[in-house]
Amino acid sequence: MTSYETLSFAVDDDGVATLTLDRPDSLNAFDLTMARELEQVFLTDARSDDVRAVVVTGAGRAFCAGMDLSAEGNVFGLDESLRPTPEEFRASYDAAPYDEGVRDTGGKVTLAIHALPKPVIAAINGPAVGIGATMTLAMDIRLASTKARIGFVFGRLGIVPEACSSWFLPRIVGIQQALEWVYSADILTAEQAHAGRLVRSLHEPDDLLPAALDLARSFVVGRSPVALGLAKQLLYRNGAAADPLEAHLSDSLAMYYTSIGDGKEGVAAFLEKRPASFTGRAADLPRIH
Amino acid sequence: MTSYETLSFAVDDDGVATLTLDRPDSLNAFDLTMARELEQVFLTDARSDDVRAVVVTGAGRAFCAGMDLSAEGNVFGLDESLRPTPEEFRASYDAAPYDEGVRDTGGKVTLAIHALPKPVIAAINGPAVGIGATMTLAMDIRLASTKARIGFVFGRLGIVPEACSSWFLPRIVGIQQALEWVYSADILTAEQAHAGRLVRSLHEPDDLLPAALDLARSFVVGRSPVALGLAKQLLYRNGAAADPLEAHLSDSLAMYYTSIGDGKEGVAAFLEKRPASFTGRAADLPRIH
Amino acid sequence: MTSYETLSFAVDDDGVATLTLDRPDSLNAFDLTMARELEQVFLTDARSDDVRAVVVTGAGRAFCAGMDLSAEGNVFGLDESLRPTPEEFRASYDAAPYDEGVRDTGGKVTLAIHALPKPVIAAINGPAVGIGATMTLAMDIRLASTKARIGFVFGRLGIVPEACSSWFLPRIVGIQQALEWVYSADILTAEQAHAGRLVRSLHEPDDLLPAALDLARSFVVGRSPVALGLAKQLLYRNGAAADPLEAHLSDSLAMYYTSIGDGKEGVAAFLEKRPASFTGRAADLPRIH
Repeated sequence: MTSYETLSFAVDDDGVATLTLDRPDSLNAFDLTMARELEQVFLTDARSDDVRAVVVTGAGRAFCAGMDLSAEGNVFGLDESLRPTPEEFRASYDAAPYDEGVRDTGGKVTLAIHALPKPVIAAINGPAVGIGATMTLAMDIRLASTKARIGFVFGRLGIVPEACSSWFLPRIVGIQQALEWVYSADILTAEQAHAGRLVRSLHEPDDLLPAALDLARSFVVGRSPVALGLAKQLLYRNGAAADPLEAHLSDSLAMYYTSIGDGKEGVAAFLEKRPASFTGRAADLPRIH
Repeated sequence: MTSYETLSFAVDDDGVATLTLDRPDSLNAFDLTMARELEQVFLTDARSDDVRAVVVTGAGRAFCAGMDLSAEGNVFGLDESLRPTPEEFRASYDAAPYDEGVRDTGGKVTLAIHALPKPVIAAINGPAVGIGATMTLAMDIRLASTKARIGFVFGRLGIVPEACSSWFLPRIVGIQQALEWVYSADILTAEQAHAGRLVRSLHEPDDLLPAALDLARSFVVGRSPVALGLAKQLLYRNGAAADPLEAHLSDSLAMYYTSIGDGKEGVAAFLEKRPASFTGRAADLPRIH
Repeated sequence: MTSYETLSFAVDDDGVATLTLDRPDSLNAFDLTMARELEQVFLTDARSDDVRAVVVTGAGRAFCAGMDLSAEGNVFGLDESLRPTPEEFRASYDAAPYDEGVRDTGGKVTLAIHALPKPVIAAINGPAVGIGATMTLAMDIRLASTKARIGFVFGRLGIVPEACSSWFLPRIVGIQQALEWVYSADILTAEQAHAGRLVRSLHEPDDLLPAALDLARSFVVGRSPVALGLAKQLLYRNGAAADPLEAHLSDSLAMYYTSIGDGKEGVAAFLEKRPASFTGRAADLPRIH
């Protein structure tokens, strides 16, 4: 397993991984090293079949205080040498493939999180601001400590909500709440975030990580990792598809695939009233398209 | 009216139909006969202009206990002789038209429900598990008995949520709740389903069907069936469309169509302070596309 | 600034505009003059850089009682001379550009509201019925008086919910609630609208407009108009996009654009612990596409 400078990553016997943002002296501020390492961990280590679910939390008193604006130089990670005028940008934007140097850094991370075909749970233990807030939106479920503080503060900094947050946030909380939080650019209390349905549940600080790990474990024991990995893809994909017929096509693919794999064992185990012993591997998932 | 083996279907004087899943000795388990008959009733009998709204419930103590896994042979209804490898499937999946023998059985049913241009209400009187749960998602509104139990249990069986449920569920309860329920694969209590906004309201067991019929009747008396049939199509279609301009185009078609039909009568009746007498027929609806 | 027959429009020193539907003797009923003037104010005066946010309310005791059905002649604003059969309409509908005379009047207004790259808040002070209800859906946030009454009454009139409401309503309240309200065609109390999450908050009648203006002001003071204008476009656009990769592309454009503009000032001000002095102009926004 890779060693990281800004993260720690550990997997327990049930296959539940704990990924810790681990720069506590900087309130786990997000810098370009952390960006690269987060992208890497979700594209490599977390994809191992030994990992069945991932819980993400922060070391110390913060979850992630946002972009490390005190960093030297180019805080946004955009290539200064490529910096085009808006007009040039718009032209390059119409041309594929998209130039790496003009890609939003946070988005590279959230696309990697989103692409992991396994449950990902955020355990928001303290302040989660800017990219610290938006990165949690690509995680499937958010639990928060009563000490959590969440801020979509971009409007105060003259920048926009990034990291594909405009795709995720309205799907989680509805368009009206999303617009208000982004317009206000305020720091939300844990209670406000819960009332607005951004976080699933609130917990006393010491209870947060155990609750997140328990929830992850409940998704793992006795469940088929292939079934869950396919379901994740289906829900995000078809929840955004124009027509239910598209869902029917991808459902049929996924149902056919599982009916000759873990589904055969699952049905047999059910009829024989014994626990199922699933052998499907998430690494073998067909791509749903 | 057709006679069914697994269903009963009756229409009252107001045009409110009650469709009952009627295999009480098997907890109304869904088998391939029920699948064919459900598809048929929604594509034929329920389309009659005598039917203005449909309430779906279960006979006995269950709504629908799910796929009848005790059935002989091919429980999924997929054609064994066509059973391709995942690679062959993926290739066939890219080819249209889609082969009937590899189409998800539940999806054929929910697409037929979805296509009915009339209000459809689920009255969930007891356990609704697997396809018993997902078929209700294609119905417009769900009422439940306090004895209802709802389970998206696919992950325990090694299969995926089907019947286009990945299209409907996030639109009803939001993506975070949808993911949690599918990952957990647990049986929800009626209260959990209500708190998560899957069901609109809870009722004492004896009050459930009367409440569902009353709600259906409130959608029928004094309303234009053409207006409601078009509105259903508009809400599902444009709620999933990329741009409001698409809504503007279909709105304009629908508004124009009604302004020379039931709308002319509706406005006249309003100005003359008399009840409207609508003559438009749902069978004549233009297709919204 | 333009003078209007059916509206009043005033801008305060913070750049918060109050737009008042101003036909109190007719309960601010919507006629073709009001339609033209609303489209105009959102496409011209409200686009001035002096305007940072818009609050919309009604003069007198109503917000807007709906289409003025007592008007002479063609209440829908559709061109009678063009009136095609449904078959001809369907053919013309497939041909672009769309004929002006068959375009839904309410939709022209809501598309103009939607296109304004600034926060728009509805302060619903009384009855808001038909187009009076649907026009608020294109506004970003809805506050209501306890005396507000909101009705999607189209089904009683034999017409359909228009003004792109089928695009907005499911995104605000979810598909189940949207269907029920449209099927019922009833007048909702303020409490019902709030419980169904259509309106963000309820206020005593005298407190409504001050609350809406305070909320608008909180979106304006110390925030970058460019950042908020881009964020509005991103949230609506990507909240309806099929894939998060689309969000990543538009995020990257917007982040790049702001990182060489208001974002440079915003980050500098943050590090120097001083208020930011943003100079970006909403009128210069790149089009997000």
